[in-house]
Order: sequence, then C-alpha cells, then structure tokens
Amino acid sequence: MISNIRFRFWGLALGLLALIGATQHIHAAGSKVETFTMDNGMEVVVIPDHRAPVVTHMVWYRVGSADEPPGESGVAHYLEHLMFKGTKTVAPGEFSRTVKRNGGQDNAFTSADYTAYFQRIAKDRLDLVMKLEADRMTNLQVGQRDIETERDVVTEERRTRIDNSPSGRLMEQVRAALYVNHPYGDPVIGWMHEIKQLDLEAVQAFYKRFYDPANAILIVAGDITAKELRPLAEKHYGVIPSKGPAKPRVRPLEPEPQAARRVTLSDPNVPTPSFRRIYTAASYSRAEPGEAEALDLLSHILGTGTTSRLYQSLVVEQKIASYAGSWYSGDALDIGDLGVYAGPQPGSGKAEIAKVEAAIDAVIQEIIEKGVTAEELARAKNSLLSAVVYLKDNQMRRARIYGVALTTGQTVRDIEEWPSRIEAITAKQVQEAAQKFLQIRRSVTGLLLPEAPQQRAKAPGASKDENKS
Amino acid sequence: MISNIRFRFWGLALGLLALIGATQHIHAAGSKVETFTMDNGMEVVVIPDHRAPVVTHMVWYRVGSADEPPGESGVAHYLEHLMFKGTKTVAPGEFSRTVKRNGGQDNAFTSADYTAYFQRIAKDRLDLVMKLEADRMTNLQVGQRDIETERDVVTEERRTRIDNSPSGRLMEQVRAALYVNHPYGDPVIGWMHEIKQLDLEAVQAFYKRFYDPANAILIVAGDITAKELRPLAEKHYGVIPSKGPAKPRVRPLEPEPQAARRVTLSDPNVPTPSFRRIYTAASYSRAEPGEAEALDLLSHILGTGTTSRLYQSLVVEQKIASYAGSWYSGDALDIGDLGVYAGPQPGSGKAEIAKVEAAIDAVIQEIIEKGVTAEELARAKNSLLSAVVYLKDNQMRRARIYGVALTTGQTVRDIEEWPSRIEAITAKQVQEAAQKFLQIRRSVTGLLLPEAPQQRAKAPGASKDENKS
Repeated sequence: MISNIRFRFWGLALGLLALIGATQHIHAAGSKVETFTMDNGMEVVVIPDHRAPVVTHMVWYRVGSADEPPGESGVAHYLEHLMFKGTKTVAPGEFSRTVKRNGGQDNAFTSADYTAYFQRIAKDRLDLVMKLEADRMTNLQVGQRDIETERDVVTEERRTRIDNSPSGRLMEQVRAALYVNHPYGDPVIGWMHEIKQLDLEAVQAFYKRFYDPANAILIVAGDITAKELRPLAEKHYGVIPSKGPAKPRVRPLEPEPQAARRVTLSDPNVPTPSFRRIYTAASYSRAEPGEAEALDLLSHILGTGTTSRLYQSLVVEQKIASYAGSWYSGDALDIGDLGVYAGPQPGSGKAEIAKVEAAIDAVIQEIIEKGVTAEELARAKNSLLSAVVYLKDNQMRRARIYGVALTTGQTVRDIEEWPSRIEAITAKQVQEAAQKFLQIRRSVTGLLLPEAPQQRAKAPGASKDENKS
Repeated sequence: MISNIRFRFWGLALGLLALIGATQHIHAAGSKVETFTMDNGMEVVVIPDHRAPVVTHMVWYRVGSADEPPGESGVAHYLEHLMFKGTKTVAPGEFSRTVKRNGGQDNAFTSADYTAYFQRIAKDRLDLVMKLEADRMTNLQVGQRDIETERDVVTEERRTRIDNSPSGRLMEQVRAALYVNHPYGDPVIGWMHEIKQLDLEAVQAFYKRFYDPANAILIVAGDITAKELRPLAEKHYGVIPSKGPAKPRVRPLEPEPQAARRVTLSDPNVPTPSFRRIYTAASYSRAEPGEAEALDLLSHILGTGTTSRLYQSLVVEQKIASYAGSWYSGDALDIGDLGVYAGPQPGSGKAEIAKVEAAIDAVIQEIIEKGVTAEELARAKNSLLSAVVYLKDNQMRRARIYGVALTTGQTVRDIEEWPSRIEAITAKQVQEAAQKFLQIRRSVTGLLLPEAPQQRAKAPGASKDENKS
C-alpha cells in the first residue's frame, strides 16, 4: 500500500529495539497473558489491557526473508505488500480503507524471521478486522497488474532506503560480509536485480507454502479476555483448514567465524566518516543459559545512553566522537548480533576515525580483561527491567514482543521469566560474554568515508586509501 | 577413492591455470576437433592425437558446487567421491582397479561449475572404460556404509586442505566475502558442518537430478577419429535414456559491487605475512566482446613471470617482496576473477606488508592511468599463444580445456577462435579492462598475519591490530 507508512525491522538492529539498546521483554506478572492453540494448529496469545476499549490485532507468520528460495530474495517482503491488494471478496485497497473508515490503523512488517500484519481499532470492530485478516490468509488474489505496480513501489522503497543512502549501502555490505553461509546476509528487502525478477508465480508459491494457520500466530492485545476471544478466533481462523503442521525452519548455518573482515564504502555524499562494527553473537533461542541475557547487559553497559562506557570514554572524556553506542539484537531464530558504532566530530577525516576505532577497541579490551563493576551491572539491570515496566504502557509494542519471541524460537514462558533471568546474571557472566563474543574474528568493521568524485584520477596513494582506515 | 590422488580446481584460480597466469585455450587449427550430439542430448567432442596409441576418455557433467541446494554445500564433490563406489554390476573400487590393471590411470575433479571423470588408457581398452563410465552414469549404488566411510575421507580432505592450512582458511573467507549473493562464495568442498550432515538421500537426489546424458559431455582425445568413436559412443552412452533436456543453470547473481572489503586472518602457524587481493571480473561466457581476452593479457602483463610489472617492481627493483604475481580466471559460467598476490621477505612484519600493498596499488594505478606498452602487449600475446602450442603436447590438458569451456558456457568455436581474438586486442582495451575491473570496490583484500598464541591477553592496541594492516 502506497498510502501506508510502513516500518520494518532491519534484522531488528536498526529498529525500535536499538533505541533502548537491548532486546526487550515484558514481565507478564499481573498481565495474565493467556494462550491456546486451535485444532488447525494456529496459536493464539491474548494480552489483556483494559485501560481503554481498543484492541491490537496481529497475525504473525513464521516466515521471513531468511526462508526465501535462493535467487528470490525480497519475495517475503514483496508478498507483504501484495497482501494489501484484494481477495475474492475484498477489492484492492479496501482492507485498509475499511480499517481507516472504522477509525483504526493498519500496517505490516517483514524481517528475516517473520512477517506480521496488524490493526489497532475499537474493540467492537475486532470481529470485522479478524474477518478481513482471515480472508487474506487464504483468498489473496494478485493479478499481473498488481505485481507490476507493486514492484515499482518496492524497488522505489529499496532505492530510498539503501541505494540512495550511503549508510544503507554500507550496512547491506557489512551484513553480507558478516554471514558467509546463512541467509541473514541477504537484505530483507531483497537484492534489486532479484526484486525485479520476482513474478506472480514466485509470489504465489511463497504464499501457498507459508501462509497457513499452522504457520501463524494470532496475537490480540487490549480490552479482551481469552474467553471472549476464543469464539471469534474459532469463527474466523479456526475454520481455515491447514495444509499440515508447520515444517521445521532449517536454514544454512554459519561455520565458526575465522577472520576479521572490513568493509569500506567511500561516497561523495558522506560529509563525515563514521564507524560501526558488528559481531555475530548468540541469539536467545540458541544461546547457552544466561548468555543472551549477559549480552543484553553487556551491550547496555558498553553503549546504551550517556553513562555507558563508550559514550563516557569517546564523547565525554576524550572528546573524539560526537556520538557512540552499541546494540544487542538477540531475538533471532538462528544468530544474534552485537554492534558498536561511533562518529567523530563533523569535518573529521581518516586520522580522527582511526582514533575513534582505537578508543572503541580499548573500551572493549578493558571489559574483556577487567569485566564490569557491580554498580554498572546494577544500573544496567534496573534500566532493562524498568523498560519492561514502561513497555506495559504501550499495547502495540507489548504485543510485538510476543510476536517476535514466538516467531524466533522462544516461548511465552521465556518472555515471562526474562526479568528474573536478567536479575540473576553476574558480573562474571557479562565478562565471559564479552570474552566469547567480542572477538575480532567474529566481526565485520564498516567504515563510511567521504570521497571526492573522480577518485580514479587521483594519485596512486589516494586510490589505496579507500581500502584502509 | 582413498588410493587415488585427486586434484581439483579451486575456482580454477589455484589450479594449473594459475601457473601460466591465464585462462588457457587451444588453437584447433590442424587438430581437426570434431563434435556431434547423440539423440539423447549427450554432446561428444573428439580431439585427434595420433602420436601414440593411447586415449584420454572424459565425461563432464554440467554441474558443480554452485548448483547445490542451500544447506547442502559439498554434495557435488561428495558424490564425485562416491562415484568410485559400486554399481549394480561393478563392485566398490572395481572401476579404478580395472583401469589400473589395464595399465591406465583414472581420476575425477569437481569445481563450482563442473564435475568430471577421466581415464587415460591404451586405445584398445577404450571400449572397456566407456562401458564402465556409462554404467555409473545411471547405475550407481551407494549404501549407508559407503556414505559414512567416504564422509570421513571428505572431511579429512577438508581438514588437510583448508582447516589445517592458514592460507586455505583465509582464501575460503576471502571468497566468501567476494560474493555477496552468488554461490561461488561457498567452498567447492563444502562447509564442514554441512558435509557432516550430507546423507544418502541428499546424494541420491543430486545424482538423479544432474547425472543424465543430456547434462553430460563426452570428450575423447587421442588416437581416434569421430568415425571410429561414434559407434562406441552410441553403444555405451547413446542408449541411456535422458530424463529430459538439460535445464538452464540459473544461479543467484551478484549485485554491482559496492564496497572494498578486507579479510585478516592471524594464525600462530604463519611465519611470514602475505598479501592477496581478488577482484570480480568478467568471465569468458558473459564478457563484452574482447573484455575477457583483454583481462587475460592484462593479468599476464601485470603479474605473470619475472618480466611482469609486479615482479619487476616489488621483487627486482624495490626488493620488498620475495614473490609477486597475478592470475585471471575467466573460465566460469557466471563470474570470473582477477587476483594479485605478493609476500615480503621471510621474517617481515606489518610494516613490510603495508609497503607491499602500497607498491601493488601503485603498479595497478600506473596501468589504469597510463596503460601498457606496445612491447609488453606483444610479449604477452606471444607468451599466451605459444602456451597454446605447448598445450598441444599434453593430451590430458588439451581435453580439459574443452571440458572446462563447454561446461562454462563457451563453445568449441570460441576455443578455436581464441588465438585470433587475443591477437586483435589493443593496448587501449587492456587499459580499459584495468579501469573497469581493477576498482577497489570490486575487491576483497586478504591478509595472512603471524599471531602469537593467547592474543586475548595482550594490550588493547594489539587486539586492534588483527583488524588492520
């Protein structure tokens, strides 16, 4: 839908979660989250929130860009767009117009691991949006003309987000270099030349294979109980026959990382150099006990907010950077990542970016060697746990936490127990996580550098510079 | 087969062809190469060579590691090993024993684009080896025990070639970083964790899908004519029913390269640092007219032999390297590559390797800016064309040229016309090839560095070094 503002997680790292620098989880005590599964295999999660007579209705599919066939990158996201076209009984665009006419909002997003559709609407309109959402789970009708129109929308989206953005292009290349075998190295939106080749057949095959009640999760948050929801769920979704149990999601896995990698992108549109490095790390679904929690705390201490080590060292004390921080993205079916980033003052050049990198290395090395203090750990725990409390205020984001967790190999219980697991992490575990995962061979360093046009005409020394920091 | 010495091309670059620094082609004038196609779609190439009553018999399949399903890397090569097990009528190992007993040699090799089997044997034994080779095209019998035994052989081969070899590990990582989307980024032998998971089912599915007369090419070089060969070919291979015409080989393609990449591997077993850089380049099958030929000449001028620019500048004049050279590998179905490499004197450290890199950059930049001389070009043409003449002496290598060409999108005519196309290349075309393909954004630079064990215990500055040159 052109008229919709879509937001999407780029491997989560660049999404909302990065803002608080941690994988967010919600403490369910008191919120009485209820779950049940219908006979056709569709899971249901009910998150009561009776402050206002509104609901957030979401359907999550356990499919994302990492499940795409080779050569068809972007088909998951493309299909997400096409889901706003019509069905046998609903005209193209009518879904969203109906939601809007009824005072609601609707949207969708795609990641490497999931695709989700949601509406936020008055409680008495829930039946209506469930009917519409169930309808497009099986009855989607996409014609050749839709395919062509929407392809233009998606390629334009790619141009805006990536091809015309030096940092977008660099991050795409960094992620491509980070994974030598796993499809997480492919962009969620797809490679341009493959988006352009996606046809009706590819989209329909993907839809038929993955859009099935047994591969879907219904999440309703808001002024409702499981008792009220169940008959509606059965009426709309329970009647949809499943093509069979959801298949295990087996993607090509990564071998053990061997070598430090470095990607340098020079572009005339870059005013000031900038630095980022991503390390592959454990994900919540595949971590050893405590490891992912320790990574959440590590990233918080390392680079979340102005009291973090990176900010204090680079921005406050040494004054060599205008910003510095980190993120940990652990909500992934296969592999998580931890990133650090910083930028020198505007107008800086290569000497300054080299200083920034050396300073980041020193901050990381200090944690590896000496660990974190009890005070830092306590502050990080408080911060993460209070974020959970704030999150309860946001119905949409809270529902989203459950959707992300359940489509990336975690359970409702994992979410509910997360605060107590965070509380139990020791400083030693944080240090061990740093020692295990902040190894340079696990990482790709990305440098974005200004470049004068016509670099080819420069002296030999200059051409070499593009490849070095 | 454990007892066989197998040689394989690693994307050609590390194979025989690298030795002469150019894609080799043979001038067919006077050699009367003949071709025909049988009714089941199997192509036949006859390369007469009547100097001795011997023949080289080869069957090439148009399938290689780049055709493997995702998550099953290594299956093409694994199957190549298993082809030496038995069939319905031939006991395991009997094929090679029979060849040996009859005074012949046999072997096989796998690349990203092809898999080939060959025997070199007395002419009067050709009927025998054709019978055996045709038999295993359709009647291969592999049991669970073969699968397990041969898996140990293959994993051991991987350990020797890659995992226990710092340069093998580095090259694997460099190639992984070179391709962001194309399967050429995966090792031909496969990722260890995927080799270990290959089972009977995966091997059989691959065999059934790709081993078919319509997907195979018979090449016989030696003391034979097409007239003599045809009845034998029809008798053994012509009778094998095809499952249908060979399908187009469509692999995920590369987007336009965006950013310079760098891979650094430090290992305690590395005595002296070394440098290599690979640029993606046109392949013969996909190049604009003249482009691949210009790349062959460029690589020759740049880095083949002691008169080349790299050797003269780094080894002879500046004395900063003990070796320096380049290769061009253009015989690929999809993407070729051009590589440069050099190593400082034993005992050198990082400062020396940085000088080596700067010197290589300067040599490249000079060609980009000023082109090559008429004398250099004439010498390179002479050298490449005389290699063709020498090649006529080597029946096996000559047959191999045809097999590689025909499985990578080229034709017999392409091979025959190659010398005249080389002769026609101008100095301007060589310079343009350098300008187009020797762009740093197309490349991955690989550094192999010595590393003291226990690097983690070092000072912060040291840990950073691993990532820089």
